[in-house]
Amino acid sequence: MSQHARGQRPEAAPFTERTPRVVAARHLTRRQGRDKAGRFLVEGAQAVREALAWQGGQVHELFVTETAAERNPELLQEASNAGIRISEVTDKAADSLSETVTPQGLIAVCDAVPQPLDTALQGTPRLVAVLYGVSDPGNAGTVTRVADAAGADAVIFASDTVDPHNGKCVRASTGSLFHLPIARSRDAAEVFAACRTAGLRLVAADGYAKQDLVEASAKGELKQPTAWVFGSEAHGLPDDVVASLDTSLKVPLYGAAESLNLATAAAVCLYASARDQRS
Amino acid sequence: MSQHARGQRPEAAPFTERTPRVVAARHLTRRQGRDKAGRFLVEGAQAVREALAWQGGQVHELFVTETAAERNPELLQEASNAGIRISEVTDKAADSLSETVTPQGLIAVCDAVPQPLDTALQGTPRLVAVLYGVSDPGNAGTVTRVADAAGADAVIFASDTVDPHNGKCVRASTGSLFHLPIARSRDAAEVFAACRTAGLRLVAADGYAKQDLVEASAKGELKQPTAWVFGSEAHGLPDDVVASLDTSLKVPLYGAAESLNLATAAAVCLYASARDQRS
Repeated sequence: MSQHARGQRPEAAPFTERTPRVVAARHLTRRQGRDKAGRFLVEGAQAVREALAWQGGQVHELFVTETAAERNPELLQEASNAGIRISEVTDKAADSLSETVTPQGLIAVCDAVPQPLDTALQGTPRLVAVLYGVSDPGNAGTVTRVADAAGADAVIFASDTVDPHNGKCVRASTGSLFHLPIARSRDAAEVFAACRTAGLRLVAADGYAKQDLVEASAKGELKQPTAWVFGSEAHGLPDDVVASLDTSLKVPLYGAAESLNLATAAAVCLYASARDQRS
Repeated sequence: MSQHARGQRPEAAPFTERTPRVVAARHLTRRQGRDKAGRFLVEGAQAVREALAWQGGQVHELFVTETAAERNPELLQEASNAGIRISEVTDKAADSLSETVTPQGLIAVCDAVPQPLDTALQGTPRLVAVLYGVSDPGNAGTVTRVADAAGADAVIFASDTVDPHNGKCVRASTGSLFHLPIARSRDAAEVFAACRTAGLRLVAADGYAKQDLVEASAKGELKQPTAWVFGSEAHGLPDDVVASLDTSLKVPLYGAAESLNLATAAAVCLYASARDQRS
C-alpha cells in the first residue's frame, strides 16, 4: 500500500469481502437494505467527490483498494480531513460492493438522498420533474441529470419508479442526485397534491396529447410554474393519471419517428419551460 | 412449424448455423463483412417492418424461427408478397445472427442505408445532424432518432463515428435509419465542405462555447439552414474541428450539472433549430 494511503488507515490487513463492515455495506447493494439503513453506496472518484461536497447529508465511510488509493490521494485527504472513516479493502471486497462492470475500487457509504415531499418543494418552485413508474434506472438517472441542467427545483420519484439509489441511476445522474432536492413517494396522488399546494401546474408529457409544447409556449403557458410528469418509456402515463393532471403536452414530431425516448423527450420539455420561464 | 409459415417456405428442415446462407449472413454481424457486402442485418418485427416499407433500398432475405413465424404471420405474408426469400432457421442459427441479449428470431438481410454525401444533402436542406467521432452505437442511434423526430433532412456519420449498421445503433434508432437520408464519410473535411455547398451553416455543439443556443435563437441565428456537429460524449469535438466550423453554441446549464449527455444535448439543439425554422 502506498505511503499516503497507509497514512489514512493504519490497520495492517485490508478488509475482505467477509469483514463485517464490508458485509454490512453489501446489504446496501439491495433496495431493501438501503431502505432499512437509510444509506446507499456511491462508487467512483467523481461521484464520491460530489457526495463529499453534498450539503444535504453526509458520507459515513469510504472503502478503497490499494490501487484506487494511489490514484486518488487528494480525494482521500479530503475525506480524511472531514473525519470520514477510510478502510482499505481487497479488490474482491471492492468488487462485492460494486454494481459496475469495471469496478473503480472506491466506494462511499452515504446518507439516502430523498427529502420529505414538502421539504423538496418548499419555497416557490418553478420547475419540477416527476417520474411516474419509470422502471429503467439509467433513464431515471439521465432525466435527473437533465432536470439539474435545466435548473429544475426538484425531482420526484413517484409511484413504482425505480429507487434513486440504484447503482445505474446514481451513475447516469453523474452527481445530479446531490445537486437538487430529490423526493420519492409511492403515493402519486400525494405527489400531485403536494405539487399543487406548491403552486405548480401539473403537465403530463404525453405523446398522444392534442397540443404540443411549441403551441403551449406561444400561448405563454410554459412560463407558469410547472411540474412535468413523465411516464415509463414502455408504457407512457396511464390514462387516468393523464386525466387527473392539469393538462398534457406532446413534443412535436416533425419527421417520421413515432416517438422520442424518455430522456430526450424530457430534455426538450424541461428546456422549453426553462427557456420561457427565464425569458 | 405452423401451417401458415410452412406456406412461406416449403423446404423440410430449418437452416442451421452451418447452412451456407446463414454462414454468409453471419459475416454481416461484423463491420468488415457489412462493408464488403453492402448489406446489413435488421432484427425484430418492428425494425423488419420498417425495412420492408423503406424506399431507399430493399430487403433481400428473411430468416425466421418457427416461434417467430407463428408470432408474425402478417409480416411474413407481407414479405412473401414482396417476393422476399423467407427461410426457417433453428433457434441456434437465429441466435448466431443476433446481437441482442434476447434474440427475437426474425432477421432480415437489407441493403446498406448510406447514400453518397451529395445525394443525402440534395435539394435545400435546412437541418442536418453530423456525428463526429461518436463511438457509442447506442448514442449514434438515439441521435439519429432525435434528428428524425426534429424533422432533420439528413444524418451524417463522419470521421471515426461508429458504423450506422451496428446492431445497437440500428436498435437505438428504432427505425429512423430508414426514415431520412444517412451518409457517412471518414473524411470530415469532405463532410463539412459538402454541408457548406448545400448552404448549411456549420454549428459545433460545444459545452465550452461562449454563446448559448437561447442567445443565438434570440438573434435569429437558428432560423438559418444549419448542420449541427456533435462530438463524442467522452471527448467532445477536437479544438481544431470547432475552429474550422462557422460558430459554436452550448446548451445553457442553469443548474449544477456539468454537462448533458450526447443524446439529450442533441435533442435540445435540434429542437431549438426546428422550432425557430418553423416559426
